[in-house]
Amino acid sequence: MLLAIPKAEIFERQQKLFARLQQNQLDCAILFSVTDIFYLTGFHFHPTERPIGFFIDPQQQTHLFVPALEHEHAEEFAYVDKVHSYPEYPGLRHPMEYFKDALLEAGFAGKRVGFDADGYGSSMGYRGPKVSQFLEAQQFQSIYGWGEEMRVIKSQAEIELIKESCRWGNLAHRLLQKYSKPGLSEIEITTRASSEATMAMIETLGADYKPHGNTAYALFRGQVGAMSAFPHAVTQNLVLKKGDTLVTGAAGEVWGYHSELERTMFVQEVSKEQEKYFTYMVQAQDIAFQNIKPGIPMSKVEEAVQAFFKENEIQHLTAHHTGHAIGLLGHEAPFFDLGDHTIIQPGMVLTVEPGIYVRGLGGFRHSDTVAVTKDGIEMLTYYPRDLESMICI
Amino acid sequence: MLLAIPKAEIFERQQKLFARLQQNQLDCAILFSVTDIFYLTGFHFHPTERPIGFFIDPQQQTHLFVPALEHEHAEEFAYVDKVHSYPEYPGLRHPMEYFKDALLEAGFAGKRVGFDADGYGSSMGYRGPKVSQFLEAQQFQSIYGWGEEMRVIKSQAEIELIKESCRWGNLAHRLLQKYSKPGLSEIEITTRASSEATMAMIETLGADYKPHGNTAYALFRGQVGAMSAFPHAVTQNLVLKKGDTLVTGAAGEVWGYHSELERTMFVQEVSKEQEKYFTYMVQAQDIAFQNIKPGIPMSKVEEAVQAFFKENEIQHLTAHHTGHAIGLLGHEAPFFDLGDHTIIQPGMVLTVEPGIYVRGLGGFRHSDTVAVTKDGIEMLTYYPRDLESMICI
Repeated sequence: MLLAIPKAEIFERQQKLFARLQQNQLDCAILFSVTDIFYLTGFHFHPTERPIGFFIDPQQQTHLFVPALEHEHAEEFAYVDKVHSYPEYPGLRHPMEYFKDALLEAGFAGKRVGFDADGYGSSMGYRGPKVSQFLEAQQFQSIYGWGEEMRVIKSQAEIELIKESCRWGNLAHRLLQKYSKPGLSEIEITTRASSEATMAMIETLGADYKPHGNTAYALFRGQVGAMSAFPHAVTQNLVLKKGDTLVTGAAGEVWGYHSELERTMFVQEVSKEQEKYFTYMVQAQDIAFQNIKPGIPMSKVEEAVQAFFKENEIQHLTAHHTGHAIGLLGHEAPFFDLGDHTIIQPGMVLTVEPGIYVRGLGGFRHSDTVAVTKDGIEMLTYYPRDLESMICI
Repeated sequence: MLLAIPKAEIFERQQKLFARLQQNQLDCAILFSVTDIFYLTGFHFHPTERPIGFFIDPQQQTHLFVPALEHEHAEEFAYVDKVHSYPEYPGLRHPMEYFKDALLEAGFAGKRVGFDADGYGSSMGYRGPKVSQFLEAQQFQSIYGWGEEMRVIKSQAEIELIKESCRWGNLAHRLLQKYSKPGLSEIEITTRASSEATMAMIETLGADYKPHGNTAYALFRGQVGAMSAFPHAVTQNLVLKKGDTLVTGAAGEVWGYHSELERTMFVQEVSKEQEKYFTYMVQAQDIAFQNIKPGIPMSKVEEAVQAFFKENEIQHLTAHHTGHAIGLLGHEAPFFDLGDHTIIQPGMVLTVEPGIYVRGLGGFRHSDTVAVTKDGIEMLTYYPRDLESMICI
């Protein structure tokens, strides 16, 4: 069972980046994005006030620049040629002075340098100079977004990890549904379902399982009863009541890879009004599934869904687009959005989640994760979607 | 029992920001920092590709700019005068065009504008223009870090919430210690301790408890046995063995406020070697506690700790500074660092956590959260620190 991206694939990613740098007449590059550093080196770390950067020198050697407390950790886990470190932030000498030393030693002076940001940034109390202030280069060019673009098409290994994530999200969600009873709080139900699913997950996967994220979980995130009409509510410790509309979420990260399973459920009974919007929502999701095909723009899927909503005069009850890509981050580009004309390609992994929101009554949204194949989609989520299955008894 | 920052205190924060803008000859301001928006408006949201911004107009009216899916949610929870929204990102018309409309309507044209960033930023696939590209102002001035500076001195209410967080971290940690037995995996122990502590937390605090973060938890984060020598290891699903050194972490967010409790523990038995480093570490922490006083620089505390390490010839086994401020973020400025000369003041809440790391043997670090008082510190963490209490039987 695959539980990590193989080392060879990490090196292939680095090779692709080298090639793109060359195509763009860049000699070397610096990346500060935490997600891209993990993607390109396999090194998972906790970002703090202490700068961490990845760089590729003109000889295509890869380097990681970390604080002293990460030095041996990086040497153990990062697929790079060399690890550099500095004592501490802010320190008696600023980390960026050590970074400058490391860049000069690696031959960055007078070169054409690509960077994803002109310096390190952190909300955790970091202050520091820009790279362009302390390094003399021939040219600086922003390569912001390159990592993100590389991550759009998933490899077979990435899809395997996302499938594994779907499996444990499915179990956590089964338990969440089973434990959803009137009088219990959302946190209580979430905690019970998530911990039981996590226990099963680690017993099954064993010592090779490295989450690099959350273990199995299922939750409501405050989307309980009338509050479920807020598409992005936050956990409020709400208590379930008979007849409540519930909107859920479930997953479990596998080596950093996310998946998304969301369901609209009802506590013990469903009214005609709830059924009406639920049915529209499922139909809208079906329309999206049918429209996702390689070669067409993302926007076409959204247009089809919007046309359906308009036809049924419920367009005013929608509040967001139909979905997004997913992978190392919970939301990634591209989007099923009227303004996103990215062409759908095999290997994309996308969420399909049109929503309807009725003030006072609740929200209606399923989210399924799908992988784009040569001629359509493969459903990675396999939880039931029909009304009968969605009533918590 | 206080479980949220009172509305009046949120408005006081806004007043302080208005005053600072005036002192700096600024007419109005824009903030994109998620943490500062929560601090200044009480609105907790999930940041995504969709831009969210807070702004203060020249009449000192407060505004929140959100995607449609957050409109009603913001109207319900944000302490602001007005909520503006746009349909979607990327949308047929870019969100920043709507933002421009909102700013112009609020009187930003030709004014002296402060902003914490020249535009929205997100790793989740967002692209967009800078504020300075679409708004014609008399002047733009960066006010980056102002929110962070406001957050340094905690109010009585903030300290109450941090104390509440400490209580539940304490319980979760008690359970973690109780369940730490050879042959069990770190995730298994963490899951059991965290879920039981969370259940007790919600039964005790009831419906008024809003986490705005994680509920009670205690974990190892991969700091098990030899791996505990990596100060920032990540969860690896390691199995505990007799004699392992363990480094833990525990807390439970209360209305977004963090606390930090970390302990060095031993599975069933402790060697002379482990005891030696443990004792040094506890002594170093005591030295830090004794040195924290209002009026002296943060660096003095670090100097005292470093002098002790040097005296005992174990300076080469240290890997990071002695601590940091804590509040809405897990790490905040200032730092107990040789290079941080910020003067310690009453109302600061700080972690005290000097560490010693011995390759092959493990890491030795306790972390206690303390509040600075008029003449010293109040210990907010109250978990035992002595060796005998740290042996998991």
